[in-house]
Amino acid sequence: MLKEAVYHRPKNEYAYAINEREIQIRLKTKKSDMIKVTLLYGDPYDYDSKRKSWIFEREHMVFNGSDQLFDYWLVTITPKNRRLRYGFQLESETEILYFTEKGFFLKTPTDVGSYFCFPFLNAVDVFTPPNWVNNTVWYQIFPERFANGDDSIDPKGTLAWGSAPPTPSNFFGGDFQGIINHLDYLVELGITGLYFTPIFKAYSNHKYDTIDYMEIDPQFGDKATFKKLIEMCHERGIKVMLDAVFNHSGFYFPPFQDVIEKNEKSAYKDWFHIHNFPVSTIEPASYDTFSYVPSMPKLNTENRDVKTYLLNVAKYWIEEFDIDGWRLDVANEVDHHFWREFRSVVKKIKPDVYILGEIWHDSMPWLNGDQFDAVMNYPLTNAITAYFAKNEITTTEFIHSVTSIVNLYPETVNEVQFNLLGSHDTPRILTLSQNNKAKVKLQMLVQFTMAGTPCIYYGDEISMTGEQDPGCRECMIWDESKQDSNMFSFTTKLIALRKQHNLLRTNENFLFLETPDDENVIFYRKKDRNGEIIVLINHNNFEKEFLLPEEYRNRVALNLWKNQKETLSTTLNLNEFGFFLAQFSNETK
Amino acid sequence: MLKEAVYHRPKNEYAYAINEREIQIRLKTKKSDMIKVTLLYGDPYDYDSKRKSWIFEREHMVFNGSDQLFDYWLVTITPKNRRLRYGFQLESETEILYFTEKGFFLKTPTDVGSYFCFPFLNAVDVFTPPNWVNNTVWYQIFPERFANGDDSIDPKGTLAWGSAPPTPSNFFGGDFQGIINHLDYLVELGITGLYFTPIFKAYSNHKYDTIDYMEIDPQFGDKATFKKLIEMCHERGIKVMLDAVFNHSGFYFPPFQDVIEKNEKSAYKDWFHIHNFPVSTIEPASYDTFSYVPSMPKLNTENRDVKTYLLNVAKYWIEEFDIDGWRLDVANEVDHHFWREFRSVVKKIKPDVYILGEIWHDSMPWLNGDQFDAVMNYPLTNAITAYFAKNEITTTEFIHSVTSIVNLYPETVNEVQFNLLGSHDTPRILTLSQNNKAKVKLQMLVQFTMAGTPCIYYGDEISMTGEQDPGCRECMIWDESKQDSNMFSFTTKLIALRKQHNLLRTNENFLFLETPDDENVIFYRKKDRNGEIIVLINHNNFEKEFLLPEEYRNRVALNLWKNQKETLSTTLNLNEFGFFLAQFSNETK
Repeated sequence: MLKEAVYHRPKNEYAYAINEREIQIRLKTKKSDMIKVTLLYGDPYDYDSKRKSWIFEREHMVFNGSDQLFDYWLVTITPKNRRLRYGFQLESETEILYFTEKGFFLKTPTDVGSYFCFPFLNAVDVFTPPNWVNNTVWYQIFPERFANGDDSIDPKGTLAWGSAPPTPSNFFGGDFQGIINHLDYLVELGITGLYFTPIFKAYSNHKYDTIDYMEIDPQFGDKATFKKLIEMCHERGIKVMLDAVFNHSGFYFPPFQDVIEKNEKSAYKDWFHIHNFPVSTIEPASYDTFSYVPSMPKLNTENRDVKTYLLNVAKYWIEEFDIDGWRLDVANEVDHHFWREFRSVVKKIKPDVYILGEIWHDSMPWLNGDQFDAVMNYPLTNAITAYFAKNEITTTEFIHSVTSIVNLYPETVNEVQFNLLGSHDTPRILTLSQNNKAKVKLQMLVQFTMAGTPCIYYGDEISMTGEQDPGCRECMIWDESKQDSNMFSFTTKLIALRKQHNLLRTNENFLFLETPDDENVIFYRKKDRNGEIIVLINHNNFEKEFLLPEEYRNRVALNLWKNQKETLSTTLNLNEFGFFLAQFSNETK
Repeated sequence: MLKEAVYHRPKNEYAYAINEREIQIRLKTKKSDMIKVTLLYGDPYDYDSKRKSWIFEREHMVFNGSDQLFDYWLVTITPKNRRLRYGFQLESETEILYFTEKGFFLKTPTDVGSYFCFPFLNAVDVFTPPNWVNNTVWYQIFPERFANGDDSIDPKGTLAWGSAPPTPSNFFGGDFQGIINHLDYLVELGITGLYFTPIFKAYSNHKYDTIDYMEIDPQFGDKATFKKLIEMCHERGIKVMLDAVFNHSGFYFPPFQDVIEKNEKSAYKDWFHIHNFPVSTIEPASYDTFSYVPSMPKLNTENRDVKTYLLNVAKYWIEEFDIDGWRLDVANEVDHHFWREFRSVVKKIKPDVYILGEIWHDSMPWLNGDQFDAVMNYPLTNAITAYFAKNEITTTEFIHSVTSIVNLYPETVNEVQFNLLGSHDTPRILTLSQNNKAKVKLQMLVQFTMAGTPCIYYGDEISMTGEQDPGCRECMIWDESKQDSNMFSFTTKLIALRKQHNLLRTNENFLFLETPDDENVIFYRKKDRNGEIIVLINHNNFEKEFLLPEEYRNRVALNLWKNQKETLSTTLNLNEFGFFLAQFSNETK
């Protein structure tokens, strides 16, 4: 048994409350080392005075997948008094060991003090994301490029829609009226959430350089139009999420302009991190910036006035416009104290608002229930695109990556993770996939059959292409003859299926079959009390006969894609880049 | 190289800011696996467009000790723009690997996205305990048993001082006037902090069953006397810490009495966690309790009124009496939200107040800078007593335990950890040590030469004895003929030495020499720019000749205990249960 590989620590993704009664416990062990893992658990104050021992119960832990180095184990328990001490019984082929906070033992320690401690399940500490998020299908809109519905408010120099490639500085006049005009399109697609990149008054076409956080950028419309848009979305069951750029302001943000002008004498000098006066705005700037960009001065979110200002912004758009979510730009460079206050302020006025951080790295420090509900799941994006789009990794590496990602956060977080294949910050998925539409479909299939909340980047559903920014920010194509209707139907169907099947939206008993690399086939299943769903993907440009695992052979399955019952045999034929998505109900076994 | 053993994760004890500029990074690897570990680090936005690579620097990581399974490595760096990405270059005898957030690589990844991320060092997130704590020497007083200075306020049935063994329910009339009368004694000893177990109006002799959080228990005196005591302490440079019992109230707490009386109709019914009405106070109680004790109903700290009430208590004793610290009873069973608010409230009115949690287990979830400054370091207590007092573990196991404990928290936490050999909740150290005073001295030596803030349990300094509660709560012995004056002098000297030598109070370059088990000798050193301190302990009941490590042979050392310079030879003779505490300045090398 490889002791060095055994890892557990309470109160993070290895031990967390999933509701006011239940706690989920994970354990990591060396890959293929254990044949069985059992949780020993009980109330800390249960003591058997005759046996002079703490009293505990046992519960089998379920194998929860492997990555390159480790196996993961999972169990859900209900401590009788919300207090919990626990340890693990580890069984390999050759030995049995007990693992607790104090290390490894040959026998179960009798003193409760040796065990791991989850002291008390306090309801207020439970991670509770809004319950609508997992059911939502998002659509990301870059407002300048979705649709121009009102040319009277076009900025100076606006180009004709789609008449030129996007550049870092050109404008095409996208606006709210354009979105309103196309709401039916989104409803037809099945969208239930809209995420807008910034809409506040700003300088650039991307609006990440805010001038006024309390005003709509005039090129998008006015507040009345925005209110109308939100109301129309809500009437159609569509949530709306805005982008909060609180790490830095734009160059033309009046407080920053005041600092440039008045230097030490500015009332706003502590709103930023100024290194020395007079302020120099030429690179390297004499103040903290986003990256090294002088036109994006970092806001001092530790300053009481800045905090009050930004928290008022956060409140204002909820209170006045009833928005449903905030996506937080460069979220990890802003202090934790600010985000805790942010959460407390916005959840107070709208308890089911969704707080989504833009973090590309391991984000556990923000996901303990006190800050964000989720982060943009770029690690999943990277695993999917590396395998399907770029052929950079093997089947095994893909399986290991996804398993690592799933085990990186509590399942409660996984259920609301923002899963995307691309955004305004990446090349478009079709371009990444060398224009192979079949490959894009497989990636969407994975995206839509994972726990989390999937998001489509505007235009991907009609096969738009585009390289890294600015290429990925082309004008939405509205000429139906130039839209890919096949991809649109595919997307619509996938969305509908996801809405129908709860199991597609969770990771309950999610497990890959470790298929050999040379097969180039992905197989995974999920399972709940009612049944099971399997996803089988042929990542080859040729037909493939797949030998089904024994447990699925000769069974009746509901082919979800075709919506017809099929009796499986021993093997299954998959088309080139084809897939098989099927449901087994428990009765059919 | 054992990849499974390599562990790192940012933003906890493995990567943390130590001030507004510097970040400390730790790494765990398999014991004796690596011969060298180097940190690769840089600003995320530094990119070499010619080489198409992220630009990074290198810094050697220092070996920071071993436990049973792992080696620990440590380095401190200053990111130039407070932003940091980093990875590790691992060198074993046979191979070199690079370890990042994305796993292991044969070459350094060129894309910054693969590396570990410490996004931004925001000053407000830095863990900043009060700077006086590390310099403080505490003395824990159980007020009912320290000294009776005013018999006019003795509770009914008070026994003559020390006339009987302590029981769970008897009283001896200890009070504030008694403490005031003996302040000179504490000053002589060198005490600079007093920690009182609860002093608020309560039912029992231990006062952990509060009746009124806003009143002094009448058996201890009145508020005027308490104020006088605090003022006298402050005049003498002594800080005062009180015990906050916020997890549960006492049975006679009026809101709880109201609930018992009025059941559903009580305005306080949500102040507790009542399972059903009418309330049953017979075990098993029909409400949540501390342990299974019906007379200690758990407070509902999620309830706004309870929160307001308790936070007002926390404020009141600081604002009105200027106390310097709060020790939080059963701290880990109270919700994190409450403690975050608690910290914010008390630090606002007294920024350098010390917040100390009573947690016996791994406490990292409370030590991220948003809740506590420290916890009671019982794991260290256990390691010291298991080795020295109880002979339960070997030298190697002791070394491994202490090294694990040191690497369990950030160094910034270690510097203010509350290090104790015993308390009102444990047998007295002399009793645990089978009345072997020499052994007690060795344990105090370890306690006082570790980072943290040491605490003496009243009477240990004069060799009082006592079994587990109630035995450990005997009346303080004031008859000098019955006090152990030798132990008192020893303690006084140790305290004085600790105050003189900064290196005794930190873990800077703290490292054990892994001495063989059959030697039964402990050797450790600490090092800073100016020099080095070594601690050498003979845990044998016979004289021992110790072969010095080569680097210390034939050098001039300042024997700190004797305060005299000595030229060391190759070996050093240690008396039975003797020790050698010496300083080397860099010039003497």
